[in-house]
Amino acid sequence: MCCGRRKAPPGLVPLILMGHGGGQHKKAPGIVERARRFVTEGGFAVVAVDVPGHGDRPKTEEFARVAAGLRAGMAAGEDVAPHLATMHTFLAGRAVPEWQAVVTAVQELDVVGTGPVGYFGMSMGCGLGVPFVAAEPRVRAAVLGLLGVEGLTEDAARVTVPVRFLLQWDDDRVPRDRGLALFDALGSADKTLHANPGGHGAIPEFETDSSLRFFVRHLG
Amino acid sequence: MCCGRRKAPPGLVPLILMGHGGGQHKKAPGIVERARRFVTEGGFAVVAVDVPGHGDRPKTEEFARVAAGLRAGMAAGEDVAPHLATMHTFLAGRAVPEWQAVVTAVQELDVVGTGPVGYFGMSMGCGLGVPFVAAEPRVRAAVLGLLGVEGLTEDAARVTVPVRFLLQWDDDRVPRDRGLALFDALGSADKTLHANPGGHGAIPEFETDSSLRFFVRHLG
Repeated sequence: MCCGRRKAPPGLVPLILMGHGGGQHKKAPGIVERARRFVTEGGFAVVAVDVPGHGDRPKTEEFARVAAGLRAGMAAGEDVAPHLATMHTFLAGRAVPEWQAVVTAVQELDVVGTGPVGYFGMSMGCGLGVPFVAAEPRVRAAVLGLLGVEGLTEDAARVTVPVRFLLQWDDDRVPRDRGLALFDALGSADKTLHANPGGHGAIPEFETDSSLRFFVRHLG
Repeated sequence: MCCGRRKAPPGLVPLILMGHGGGQHKKAPGIVERARRFVTEGGFAVVAVDVPGHGDRPKTEEFARVAAGLRAGMAAGEDVAPHLATMHTFLAGRAVPEWQAVVTAVQELDVVGTGPVGYFGMSMGCGLGVPFVAAEPRVRAAVLGLLGVEGLTEDAARVTVPVRFLLQWDDDRVPRDRGLALFDALGSADKTLHANPGGHGAIPEFETDSSLRFFVRHLG
């Protein structure tokens, strides 16, 4: 596309950390395909790791208990948002410090170095990303979305970096008003909502172009 | 920016018609500055004309009567939306056929020709643009926004071309839910809402870059 970035000085390559969705993992197509574009077209370094209980990581008893509560709520046709919030809060307590350590470790690589950091995460990747971005001052820009405000109001208010927020207008999992409320709750003065028709998984491909340009503008 | 377009064949230059805001005119800064970028960076032809009762055009008695109703409603602190809808309906009945004739006339110029047509209009330019885009099959893509749904539901449903819709999250003139309702009412399968913080006139400059890319993608 149209996002050629000037080559960063050695040791200052901008790094994007990507958080995967619930039940997914670090090599899910939505992670790998976007990561490849961020690297090849934007010149970024990208890192993604499995969230606890996902991918190659063991499912602890505690994780299994929280996951069972989520599944039971879904099966009973309950409002799933409080269960999701419980799961995300449980996981964020573990993932946020891990991700902070991952950023430190990756930035120690000579091919990366201590350049600016961005974050990309949809759905559960947003639910963990909001507390991560709120807590981590090295993050300078974030693409978030596909999630409602439940359990995130306070952390969202502490997010002050530029944010791109993606919302699916006909999301079958996130009520529209709850997604709009999460965008509203973000503390950033520079935040843009992009909403497109379609369900939870149907983000148009051109939004990846747009996310790439957003990261180039803020981290490039 | 990054929007170089292949030069169109002679006689097929894409044309963008721009509709100005209420109380403004064809040479208002928001028209001229965007038009210059669409021409120089996108290779488009751009045309804007004064809406009846605006700019160099006479204010008829009928226009003066409708405008007086709008001003009186504003002065009385009434909900201004129905008055705006009345004004826009009155003006659209005149502007839409004029704009259709303008497209025909401009496309007869050798330097333009019968390429694809786009439309750009915010606020009143959206209020007249929705019925124009609904009525004019030569329009293939439109950037609209800064207006609520009042009086536009039926025409919006008849819009089927790709639409970019700009909404200001803290618009001091358009209640948020009414702007969202106009986006919702658009019949287009390919429509994207971009919402940014700030008041009615505070659309960020990067949205002009984005509109340019949108037109390049759909008309280029």
